[in-house]
Amino acid sequence: MKFICTQENFNKALLVVSHIAGRSTALPILNNVLIQAKKGLINLSATNLEIGVNTQLRGKVEKEGIFTTQAKLITDYISLLPKKNIEVELKEQNLYINCENHQTYIKGMEANDFPVIPEIERKQPILIKSNDLKQALSQVIFAITLDESRPEISGALFFINNKTLTLVGTDSYRLAEKRITLNETINSEYKVVVPLRTLQEVFRILEDNDESDTTIYINENQILFLINGETELISRLIEGQYPDYQQIIPDKHKTQTKINVAELSRIIKSAALFCKPGINDVKLVLNSAKNQLVISATNSGVGENTITLPIQIEGEENEMVFNYRYLLDGLNNLGTSEAILEMVGDRVPGILKPADNNNYLYLVMPIRQ
Amino acid sequence: MKFICTQENFNKALLVVSHIAGRSTALPILNNVLIQAKKGLINLSATNLEIGVNTQLRGKVEKEGIFTTQAKLITDYISLLPKKNIEVELKEQNLYINCENHQTYIKGMEANDFPVIPEIERKQPILIKSNDLKQALSQVIFAITLDESRPEISGALFFINNKTLTLVGTDSYRLAEKRITLNETINSEYKVVVPLRTLQEVFRILEDNDESDTTIYINENQILFLINGETELISRLIEGQYPDYQQIIPDKHKTQTKINVAELSRIIKSAALFCKPGINDVKLVLNSAKNQLVISATNSGVGENTITLPIQIEGEENEMVFNYRYLLDGLNNLGTSEAILEMVGDRVPGILKPADNNNYLYLVMPIRQ
Repeated sequence: MKFICTQENFNKALLVVSHIAGRSTALPILNNVLIQAKKGLINLSATNLEIGVNTQLRGKVEKEGIFTTQAKLITDYISLLPKKNIEVELKEQNLYINCENHQTYIKGMEANDFPVIPEIERKQPILIKSNDLKQALSQVIFAITLDESRPEISGALFFINNKTLTLVGTDSYRLAEKRITLNETINSEYKVVVPLRTLQEVFRILEDNDESDTTIYINENQILFLINGETELISRLIEGQYPDYQQIIPDKHKTQTKINVAELSRIIKSAALFCKPGINDVKLVLNSAKNQLVISATNSGVGENTITLPIQIEGEENEMVFNYRYLLDGLNNLGTSEAILEMVGDRVPGILKPADNNNYLYLVMPIRQ
Repeated sequence: MKFICTQENFNKALLVVSHIAGRSTALPILNNVLIQAKKGLINLSATNLEIGVNTQLRGKVEKEGIFTTQAKLITDYISLLPKKNIEVELKEQNLYINCENHQTYIKGMEANDFPVIPEIERKQPILIKSNDLKQALSQVIFAITLDESRPEISGALFFINNKTLTLVGTDSYRLAEKRITLNETINSEYKVVVPLRTLQEVFRILEDNDESDTTIYINENQILFLINGETELISRLIEGQYPDYQQIIPDKHKTQTKINVAELSRIIKSAALFCKPGINDVKLVLNSAKNQLVISATNSGVGENTITLPIQIEGEENEMVFNYRYLLDGLNNLGTSEAILEMVGDRVPGILKPADNNNYLYLVMPIRQ
């Protein structure tokens, strides 16, 4: 194997795939990136057996071949090279890398032992604006549980129906739902659960301000993301039934207010200094008679804090106690400067949503008082 | 006690002192900040028994008094308040804090149990430009040992002689020496060792681009820093003799080269990917015949890297092996874009210094090959 490419291209491609490679000693080949030069193309692959990722880079293939080497080392090394041409050549189980005045060889392993990354039948392409997908992932991923004993919610629901992709993430204490419009109507309906780690990788690989489309293919137990025309990420899907989350979304509210996101965040942080550690309880009172939002917390060992904010409130007087961390998470991910806060009361979740659109919903379960 | 001050002033003063307060449960009063309103002044103090810090802030004292409360909590709380006036009042072991629509009380403890912060006789003031002191500290602190079994080098040497303050820090593997010019000649000579933690605090309290002077007073076993006219930091000194470090500074070099700091850093990082973990050995060859700097590292399990840089080299051919982390630390703190690298060879330390001034010296012990 021998090829020549630019430092920029090699570096970018390595950064895409190498993150999936592991650092385990149990199965060392999984720590490696597979490098293949074939038919004028240079292909890089990595897998953790649950997710496989391939990417292509442009370069000049002088001799076809295939080899694997430590993903982290070669990525770190290439990133530090000057922005010049890089020559890569395989000689006796070593990759020789030449770039300007840097001469290096890196040991590696034969490609034979590298796991095969599965293919998926590409029947129904689902096209989404990459920008929309990236924003949607950021608004849903953070709410997904890290609790491995709840596999059915350890990913996001991807619900595709007509021209809408609905993404849902929850840890059973709060839930985020985001709707995005697809490029065209899809005839089949899909309802699958995509693992958190897969979503984190897709989010990482999607570039900021990417005006291109991402194509998704889904089958029985796998999903393929085709990003930027260069990178393919294939992942298993989570088995099991996603909870019927719609039943917990209140169909009407009793109290509503519109509030500045930055101001509400600051006030919640301020009150939270006085909440009970571990419970993280702050109380929100919507006083519609006085048009006041009162946020307070008390920790008998520490002190007490009450903030009274004059604000327009519609509907009945209402009060609820929330875990302040969940409120802040939601506020941080609304993507707008003004939020709508809605309460029903009792044990019904409170709702945060952006004031300027209807595509995002964030539910927080109350703490029982 | 009752006083009114601005959020900005209170916040700034709390940030200065509260960092010294602890979070220990053994002696809870040390977690507190002492707040005293007296004769129209508001004074904040904190101590960890080794370092004491006082600062003043402007405000309107309506009733004199003294009290202590949790430093971290009140600092975090005040930092989140709007930039308005704050009213602080002591009522029955609670500090009541009012600011716009925020009402709070924070529990506290009587001031009686708060340790007395010692005073020091202010005989000989030593004036230094605050800017110079801040830069000098940054260039020396990082080299000071964290090894508590070497108390005599667990701080920086402050050597004051005539119009020069020389600061020295070492961990016995590398040494940084910085000289700064004092505002005026000092008749007495001082040679004291100031604890690392003290220097870190002084560095933290000194503001960036502070054109004012810092005044230092030194006695037998204490040092006082008077910063910005508002803040006093008093610390114990370290007992014991600082090593006679001058004897290890080579009085002449055999080989010298001038090199770009950013370029050398990048190359060292690149080679370091191939060094032996734990030993961190990279080899530097100064080839004066070919005018080449050759940097290399080899880890038989991983691979090998050699970088050959064409560069003007004066003197004999020379080579040394260094711990790359120490080299990078030095390069990061030279404060200039061009460095002078000097070698004698054998077991004599290598030297890095700024190309544009003679006030800083960084020595690195070689690794024996």
